[in-house]
Amino acid sequence: MHRSRLVAALVDVPQELFEQEAGFWSGALGAEQHRDADDPDYAHLGEVTPGFELYVQRVGASARVHLDIETDDVEAEVRRLETLGATRVEQIKTWWVMRDPAGLVFCVVRVQLPEAFARDAREWP
Amino acid sequence: MHRSRLVAALVDVPQELFEQEAGFWSGALGAEQHRDADDPDYAHLGEVTPGFELYVQRVGASARVHLDIETDDVEAEVRRLETLGATRVEQIKTWWVMRDPAGLVFCVVRVQLPEAFARDAREWP
Repeated sequence: MHRSRLVAALVDVPQELFEQEAGFWSGALGAEQHRDADDPDYAHLGEVTPGFELYVQRVGASARVHLDIETDDVEAEVRRLETLGATRVEQIKTWWVMRDPAGLVFCVVRVQLPEAFARDAREWP
Repeated sequence: MHRSRLVAALVDVPQELFEQEAGFWSGALGAEQHRDADDPDYAHLGEVTPGFELYVQRVGASARVHLDIETDDVEAEVRRLETLGATRVEQIKTWWVMRDPAGLVFCVVRVQLPEAFARDAREWP
């Protein structure tokens, strides 16, 4: 038995647009940017609505938006999503990059927001 | 003076993938699909986390995810976002389709979730 919930959207942009894009979404949502020197590819805009986070991420790919699902058992959640039609792309550190049936990238990550997770996550057999 | 907040993500997919994609995200998040006969291009998955909605939408474009900002003054919010670097794409019914500085589509829509809006929206001069 494990649990999961939608936790974040990430606005992925190439290197040359990262600062402009982070500034735009920060201003658009009135959300301060948090930077972590250990993770320079992310501008974290925090919980732009309670229980749901937004990030701007520097990527080596075309601009896109992707969703993150948080879970207390990454491997079990990845297997569950495979049975629904998703496919594994690659494992990065503690998370899995997957593709949905339309080919859109999303990620399965460990619990990011423990309070919201405890309150709102769905339970799977 | 007006207010706005992030309210939704929309998973946009071409016609031939719409039913499969709606089924996938419904199963992935444990969220029942709501269909409206007047709006057959949307599968509404409701508030997948309190205050934030997910839709799967049938579009005549490549698959993508886009974000929606809700506001009590669409024109004022569109003008504010233009000053931050967004551009207008087209007005549809009561909402505006815009592009962010990286060219990603997002929409500015009227208030969709009045309770969350009253509680969490940011106020702009």
